[in-house]
Amino acid sequence: MFVLITYDVNITLAHGAKRLRNVARACLNYGKRVQNSVFECILTESQFFVLRDQLKGIIDTEQDSIRFYILGKNWKRKVETLGKDMGVDFTGELII
Amino acid sequence: MFVLITYDVNITLAHGAKRLRNVARACLNYGKRVQNSVFECILTESQFFVLRDQLKGIIDTEQDSIRFYILGKNWKRKVETLGKDMGVDFTGELII
Repeated sequence: MFVLITYDVNITLAHGAKRLRNVARACLNYGKRVQNSVFECILTESQFFVLRDQLKGIIDTEQDSIRFYILGKNWKRKVETLGKDMGVDFTGELII
Repeated sequence: MFVLITYDVNITLAHGAKRLRNVARACLNYGKRVQNSVFECILTESQFFVLRDQLKGIIDTEQDSIRFYILGKNWKRKVETLGKDMGVDFTGELII
C-alpha cells in the first residue's frame, strides 16, 4: 500500500535536531523523500506497523507531529505536483 | 473531495519568504493547516482547479514544490497520526 508520511519535529527545544534526523533516517529505509518533511512509501501492512512503532519511539509526542495518509492502489492517479517534483515512479525500471 | 496539500518553498533566495506566506494564505482560504507545510482541504473540483492555478501563480516553479494528494470520500479512515494532532473533523459541528 502507498503511505504518505508528513512530519513536523520541534527543533527549538533540546534533542529536536536529533529527532528530526532520526525520523528522516527511519523513513529513508522505506521510501522516497519528495519534500523536506514528506516521504512516499510503498509498504506492506506489517512494514507499516514496524515503521510506525519505530517513529513512535523516536518522536516527542508532546512536541512533534507525524501524519500517515494511506492512499489506495491507484495512488499514482491521486497525486499532482506543481514546480520541482522529486517524486519517483516506484513501478518504473530500476537502472543500476 | 479531500485534498492534502504539501509544499516546500525555497526561502534562501529572493522573495522566498513572501512566496511562503502567500502559499499558506491561499491554502488557509480553503482548508486547515495540520503541520507547518501541510494543509487538509475539502474542495469541490472547481475549487481545486482555482486553488491550484492560484498556487501556480505564486510559486517559483524552478525553486519550489507543491504536491496535491487527492484522497477519496473515506479519507478519515486513511489518516493516522502520532504526537500532536492539529487535524480537524470537517464534518463535526462548527461551534461559533
